Amino acid sequence: MPIDAEKLLNWPFDDLEHSYQARDTILYALGAGCGSDPLDEGDLRYVYEDGLVALPSMAVVLGYPGFWLKEQNTGVDWQRLLHGEQGMVLHRPLPVSGTVIGRTKVTGLVDKGEGKGALLYSKRDVFDKASGDLLATLTSTSFLRGDGGFGGASGPARAFHPIPPRAADASLDLPTLPQAALIYRLSGDYNPLHADPKVAAAAGFPRPILHGLCTYAVACRAVLRLACVNEAHRLKAMEVRFSAPVFPGETIRTEIWRDGAELAFRCWAVERNVKVLDNGRAQIAG
Amino acid sequence: MPIDAEKLLNWPFDDLEHSYQARDTILYALGAGCGSDPLDEGDLRYVYEDGLVALPSMAVVLGYPGFWLKEQNTGVDWQRLLHGEQGMVLHRPLPVSGTVIGRTKVTGLVDKGEGKGALLYSKRDVFDKASGDLLATLTSTSFLRGDGGFGGASGPARAFHPIPPRAADASLDLPTLPQAALIYRLSGDYNPLHADPKVAAAAGFPRPILHGLCTYAVACRAVLRLACVNEAHRLKAMEVRFSAPVFPGETIRTEIWRDGAELAFRCWAVERNVKVLDNGRAQIAG
Repeated sequence: MPIDAEKLLNWPFDDLEHSYQARDTILYALGAGCGSDPLDEGDLRYVYEDGLVALPSMAVVLGYPGFWLKEQNTGVDWQRLLHGEQGMVLHRPLPVSGTVIGRTKVTGLVDKGEGKGALLYSKRDVFDKASGDLLATLTSTSFLRGDGGFGGASGPARAFHPIPPRAADASLDLPTLPQAALIYRLSGDYNPLHADPKVAAAAGFPRPILHGLCTYAVACRAVLRLACVNEAHRLKAMEVRFSAPVFPGETIRTEIWRDGAELAFRCWAVERNVKVLDNGRAQIAG
Repeated sequence: MPIDAEKLLNWPFDDLEHSYQARDTILYALGAGCGSDPLDEGDLRYVYEDGLVALPSMAVVLGYPGFWLKEQNTGVDWQRLLHGEQGMVLHRPLPVSGTVIGRTKVTGLVDKGEGKGALLYSKRDVFDKASGDLLATLTSTSFLRGDGGFGGASGPARAFHPIPPRAADASLDLPTLPQAALIYRLSGDYNPLHADPKVAAAAGFPRPILHGLCTYAVACRAVLRLACVNEAHRLKAMEVRFSAPVFPGETIRTEIWRDGAELAFRCWAVERNVKVLDNGRAQIAG
């Protein structure tokens, strides 16, 4: 049965209230691989309660409504769904603890045609509950591989941010831990694909894969170091396209291209020479 | 001013209620280094909610009253205190989530003499709140280096469990992560000595040291693998003496000597060839 575009576009999300502690903020950063050099005080700020700063990419786990396309009766063939793109705009530095409200809505649905899948765009605003301030806006694209040909419009699809046709201006290799996915999932995405070898095998992978959003967090760390003197508040926005999974334990190489306050970037799984994030764009404050 | 032995021996601990979730049980095991091989299903049981088992050494963080010798007005020179010994007796398998009651008391105080320090023995019973069942009994020895010569009895001091004068029957090397202490401290011991290079330097260490109880957890993993077919419920008791600190990132070698249902064991920091746990004893069920 084809998906019901009208129903999906008007999906009635409840506001989601999410409280978190400094311990959760630290755990998120540890899942992103912070602290791998105990003498590197640049990373200590993300993992130590004295002077704690939230890693900006933590916005993607705040006020998260869960895997609603699976958990609710959406009609989507969720087993063939892939996380296609992720973006964030940071309006304010993230509190290291507090209560936030996540407000999600579907913003678009594109029919790529029978057998070619569909694109579902969604957006989540995250507010500080106490002040009402808008903290961050998250944008996400789900690639519904099994749901093309529902009779919808074939556009407009988001344009990919171009990577300049020249050598990168800078790059940074960051290791991931063999247990990175096991740590990262404690920030809220308990999909067994990232922990259980049997589930991973059933999905066609030789072992559990890293969360795309964990790779996103590693890329965020690299962008902060390469372009923000590792000062979290200078990162204003960051968006990527997921092009291939990372296996926990691999090294992630982030390449950046500078263009004023904007960066293009992409990431590679070094050991396999596979591009894992592509068409990245980041905005940096002066 | 010398410590007041009568006051310490009768320290009025309140019962401590402690609730924890499966996420905390997983986080404890990750702090102990479980999950370093994502295809090793032997460790998966400690870090994955489907079929989750609590690592037995988690008993040491349940119902823990905190660093009361520092936090309360005990008169102890806490800056010179060392954790000398730790033991546990497991009466029942630990629940993977629940609420426990910790009931602590001081059980002995030995005066080693002026300039030689004192030994403070304490015991904590941990009960399941819902059933009232006794789950575990923890014993701990604090070496109060600055508090000898208070006029107390010079005994009885606990005897050290002997290590047989022959080659070990088996041994196992387990790696620790450079960020092991940063992960482990999220289980409740936030002493900055384990995170902050400045605090570590002030204490005379070139970098933050691993929690002794994290080393204890790694030893527990090794004992389970070497003597219990990695079946947590078979470990009934385990006690050690702390002989030197481990630096996060070092490999811990555990050597065991079998004697029926009892084991002797000790641990080394392999890279420095330093004995870190000594006089270990474990009891194993058949």
